Amino acid sequence: MAGATPIPADADWLAAAARLATRARPLSRPNPGVGALVIKDDIVVGRGWTMPGGRPHAEAIALAQAGEAARGADIFVTLEPCAHRSTRGPACADLLVEAGPARVIAGCEDPDPRTAGQGIARLRAAGIDARIADHPPSWASLAGYLTRARDGRPHVTLKLAMSLDGRIALPDGQSRWITGEIARAHVHSRRALSDAILVGGKTWRADAPALDVRLPGIEDRSPQRIVLTRGPAPQGTLAIASPDRIGTLADVLYLYVEGGAGAAASFLAVDLVDRLEIYRAPILIGDGLPAIGDIGLGNLSAAHERWGLAERRQLGSDTFEAYERQREE
Amino acid sequence: MAGATPIPADADWLAAAARLATRARPLSRPNPGVGALVIKDDIVVGRGWTMPGGRPHAEAIALAQAGEAARGADIFVTLEPCAHRSTRGPACADLLVEAGPARVIAGCEDPDPRTAGQGIARLRAAGIDARIADHPPSWASLAGYLTRARDGRPHVTLKLAMSLDGRIALPDGQSRWITGEIARAHVHSRRALSDAILVGGKTWRADAPALDVRLPGIEDRSPQRIVLTRGPAPQGTLAIASPDRIGTLADVLYLYVEGGAGAAASFLAVDLVDRLEIYRAPILIGDGLPAIGDIGLGNLSAAHERWGLAERRQLGSDTFEAYERQREE
Repeated sequence: MAGATPIPADADWLAAAARLATRARPLSRPNPGVGALVIKDDIVVGRGWTMPGGRPHAEAIALAQAGEAARGADIFVTLEPCAHRSTRGPACADLLVEAGPARVIAGCEDPDPRTAGQGIARLRAAGIDARIADHPPSWASLAGYLTRARDGRPHVTLKLAMSLDGRIALPDGQSRWITGEIARAHVHSRRALSDAILVGGKTWRADAPALDVRLPGIEDRSPQRIVLTRGPAPQGTLAIASPDRIGTLADVLYLYVEGGAGAAASFLAVDLVDRLEIYRAPILIGDGLPAIGDIGLGNLSAAHERWGLAERRQLGSDTFEAYERQREE
Repeated sequence: MAGATPIPADADWLAAAARLATRARPLSRPNPGVGALVIKDDIVVGRGWTMPGGRPHAEAIALAQAGEAARGADIFVTLEPCAHRSTRGPACADLLVEAGPARVIAGCEDPDPRTAGQGIARLRAAGIDARIADHPPSWASLAGYLTRARDGRPHVTLKLAMSLDGRIALPDGQSRWITGEIARAHVHSRRALSDAILVGGKTWRADAPALDVRLPGIEDRSPQRIVLTRGPAPQGTLAIASPDRIGTLADVLYLYVEGGAGAAASFLAVDLVDRLEIYRAPILIGDGLPAIGDIGLGNLSAAHERWGLAERRQLGSDTFEAYERQREE
């Protein structure tokens, strides 16, 4: 019937939970940013996301909102409810058993060995219809946490702002401005979703970039600044000597690499970029500084089938594109 | 009412005529490729486009199809009907007066001094409600003809096939293949819409590109090949010494510049590119050959507000983007 709102399927509710989860990014660190929804008779009766510092968990907040309505409800949560007790709060699996929902659908199994299937098992033991859904949007919302768990390092986004012909500056280094105001504000919003921002030592010395979040109301979200350098860390920053040291950055789930061409190349050369975010201005520069230095590519076929388009949108006259690294499971 | 087809407005009919006009491109040369529709009681009773070699004209074909139905009809034509008699056929204005339509709407005044308003005037003198509409899709469909008339040169499209970071080859020149099969077939379809294809002398000597149309059924549409060189023309080609000589290319309305970086830069440096067509593969190359050489850009602000996005589509995993040069009227 035209005009009637279709009833969301499980995957739609999970997708809504995944969108809620981004509200926890990055302040939930070192805990994953999780989203949860309590649905009773196709109506949202509770919702939550992980609070700054990691507690309370999303489920605790959503259940507290739902109150008695949680009994017999469906619960959608992006990550398997935790099974381990902590001094900082109860295990979500226990809270859920107590609340008595009919179903619990989780978007992703928790790789934390203290949970890892035991959350779902405990729910099932209590007679709740609980399961893990294969749900890519949930995985995407947990990218920082899952990358840490799997690879022992943060999720890395490489940002590039360039002309149509792939230049980031004139030969003399002039780069203000290639992209427009909307694109620059978008960059600030992406910084605010990161735990740390990295630039190369040369870029730091040349531009002394502020690397802060200059958006009204979230100026305090400016992330830790990191400089890729073998020398000492400039004041107000941390230094790492090479990309393979990013695993040592404590509590960093999301690392945002802002350039320059040398830093971009050094991350790409060792395959430590998970996501490209490209801002492309409708200009041609011709001779100028390239976006990326030597990445040691020996032949063109090796370059293919690595990047998949994940998002594209117009930001004024600039285009924003995100590409995700396609990795074998 | 849902499901009912809305009755097209004048601009919609003109847009349909502009789409018909592309069927005349490029074989109508040296005449403009025009499209015409005869509409009676909101039904198409005649349609036509300029035939190869330029005759018959679109109106003559559409009127012949409509027959007596043209009397009292609306006629939509992308270009003002011609007012001058030729040994090759009658003036369309006279044909139209004879056919007796109620209205004639033309998308563009004919810049040919033999017509230039006189086509419309003759129709009005015969009591027909005739007018020129301001209709950008009609202008676009006449780009080659209008550029010749205004600037005494063909309309120039610069094609670039590159990686996300603006590279067209590895440092050793390896460029097979950056884009995929669908993009390459699209290039051949664009060649088929051109009167001539140009490459730089260096590209010619290095790659000896075939520059032909390898699409089933239209292999015979392969355009004239032109090499940008101060030396003698390689066999089977014409040579021009510099971009500002393109006005001397007889009967060329649409010129398609395929590279390399030097030829691209030499056209851009003298502002002789009207349209960019960019094929972008989702790969990163890093160190490699840039798409465009030095275009003499002194500062970034001069690069802005020159190019407007006209079209974007996905061709497999590659992206096709067309940008039009924004020129002052």
